[in-house]
Amino acid sequence: MPETMNRRIVLASRPVGDPRPLDFRLESAAIPEPRSGEVLLRTLWLSLDPYMRGRMSTAKSYAKPVEIGEVMVGGTVSEVVASQNPAFRVGDVVVGSAGWQDYAVSDGTGLRKLDPGAAPVSTAIGVLGMPGMTAYTGLLTIGQPKPGETLVVAAATGPVGSAVGQIGKIKGCRVVGIAGGPDKCRYLLDELGFDAAIDHRLPDLAHRLEEACPNGIDVYFENVGGAVWEAVFPLLNPFARVPVCGLVSQYNATAAPEGPDRSAALMRAILTKRLTLRGFIVGDFAAQAADFARDVSAWVKDGRIKYREDVTEGLEHAPEAFMGMLKGRNFGKTLVKL
Amino acid sequence: MPETMNRRIVLASRPVGDPRPLDFRLESAAIPEPRSGEVLLRTLWLSLDPYMRGRMSTAKSYAKPVEIGEVMVGGTVSEVVASQNPAFRVGDVVVGSAGWQDYAVSDGTGLRKLDPGAAPVSTAIGVLGMPGMTAYTGLLTIGQPKPGETLVVAAATGPVGSAVGQIGKIKGCRVVGIAGGPDKCRYLLDELGFDAAIDHRLPDLAHRLEEACPNGIDVYFENVGGAVWEAVFPLLNPFARVPVCGLVSQYNATAAPEGPDRSAALMRAILTKRLTLRGFIVGDFAAQAADFARDVSAWVKDGRIKYREDVTEGLEHAPEAFMGMLKGRNFGKTLVKL
Repeated sequence: MPETMNRRIVLASRPVGDPRPLDFRLESAAIPEPRSGEVLLRTLWLSLDPYMRGRMSTAKSYAKPVEIGEVMVGGTVSEVVASQNPAFRVGDVVVGSAGWQDYAVSDGTGLRKLDPGAAPVSTAIGVLGMPGMTAYTGLLTIGQPKPGETLVVAAATGPVGSAVGQIGKIKGCRVVGIAGGPDKCRYLLDELGFDAAIDHRLPDLAHRLEEACPNGIDVYFENVGGAVWEAVFPLLNPFARVPVCGLVSQYNATAAPEGPDRSAALMRAILTKRLTLRGFIVGDFAAQAADFARDVSAWVKDGRIKYREDVTEGLEHAPEAFMGMLKGRNFGKTLVKL
Repeated sequence: MPETMNRRIVLASRPVGDPRPLDFRLESAAIPEPRSGEVLLRTLWLSLDPYMRGRMSTAKSYAKPVEIGEVMVGGTVSEVVASQNPAFRVGDVVVGSAGWQDYAVSDGTGLRKLDPGAAPVSTAIGVLGMPGMTAYTGLLTIGQPKPGETLVVAAATGPVGSAVGQIGKIKGCRVVGIAGGPDKCRYLLDELGFDAAIDHRLPDLAHRLEEACPNGIDVYFENVGGAVWEAVFPLLNPFARVPVCGLVSQYNATAAPEGPDRSAALMRAILTKRLTLRGFIVGDFAAQAADFARDVSAWVKDGRIKYREDVTEGLEHAPEAFMGMLKGRNFGKTLVKL
């Protein structure tokens, strides 16, 4: 890579269904120059997350879509390589949102300096960053897990699911994880200490989940939707809580599923079982940032929370890594190392 | 009525779809004798409520169904006509659950003495009883209405809906009521002080509701489901709260509606709008009984909450009144005077 050029990946077209390679375009441009008050950042790590599929679409959501031709958004860990901002020095490592590119300028808004001695800097976009805080705030504030309750989480080896399950264990729950394939299931049991692991690729998910939840389900942390939700739904106990964090199995859907219309049955269950379903994004709980940082840093340090990273080398491979993640091909937090 | 016989209405068969007259049976039996510790109650007022449709069915719910041949359940205001229980004297008026019958014995469990001088005793099964407390607890605890927000409630002239709307006005909301027919809509505007009233019998409900809610909907108190919910759903604002109290339009449904399956769209909206949907029954909030009694008694006394009763005379007409209520033919709280 010539150090005079900034490579960046832009949205070339809006995906219909599964994103395809042609929906992304790798471009080169001059490295931007920081003006007074700005810093120039060189990306070290790029986070790939399911929410980005939503930003590729114009469907109404909680954030504006990426425009065609714009750089794809994304959380990053970067090094300050030039600074016109007295708050940052060359060599500082910061977490921010520089997107899918080698370089970016920033006026410092939303940047947070990292201490590379405290934890590997990649964790700032993983277990100690947005995914970890999503797990912590959604589970504790909405899920309200109590000792002895049963907690179910899908995409359980992913950065959010693995933190949800391990925090659930710390809170005294029976934790059942759902993941794709025997390796991931073994990891849940052997490494993360889950009480049961269900491989959603094997037949008869509903029956195996029921067996793993002999006392029903009190908290279901929803991040996938689809077939998993259908297996979970009949097992929900009275007063169960469902933090709705993501629906990754639905993000590439192009039409509503065939009937019958089960939304009436869902409303009936909400009523008769007195369920709580509540959607959230991590920014809704910004006030809990200090609690999160204190608790989860300590749990990572003492080994009660483990994390796993799935690293792809090279910006040019980010689209492939992203498309694979939406299909569950990642094993741990999806990161691109630049 | 010979004073030696107890007339009672039992469940003759489980309705399929709309209940029919033959699903009920009027029987006569000897008036029961109170034993030591018991009282004999003569029913003065019987409350008819939508939840009773659920008790006629064996579908899983929060309460056991009425068995075939058993007396239909129901809240009542009764007079003590014989007492072997030192806590009650002949002539006491009590609120309880004696069901659809002239006489019942009770050991006193669940009975509460009323002061006939404080309020008309029928209000103990209306605005100052279960329906009023349902409105108060569900709206305030789950709905959390804030000044300036828009609150929508259907079945708005019914005992729950009318209390929901009037409490919403007290809390400073813009209140939009949905009801069937011009008389009920006029009552909402002229008598109860709602800001807008929508007749769900006229065409184009969705459009008229949108016009009545120029700033979207922040709280929707769900007690009907069906077409009203479909009109409300697209208008819900980010962070809207939906206390799910009842689904009376669905209670007689015999099959899931035709597709497409909109449950995925519902989950997506919960996520992207960060909605809270929470089911409840009044018993979940028993701890708030004193707050409710204090606040709503005061509001009724000072005229800030008005109530309306729809009285049918004679136990034998209870099935007809009940079937009519499920179709929205009542105007106010459905009561049977015995």
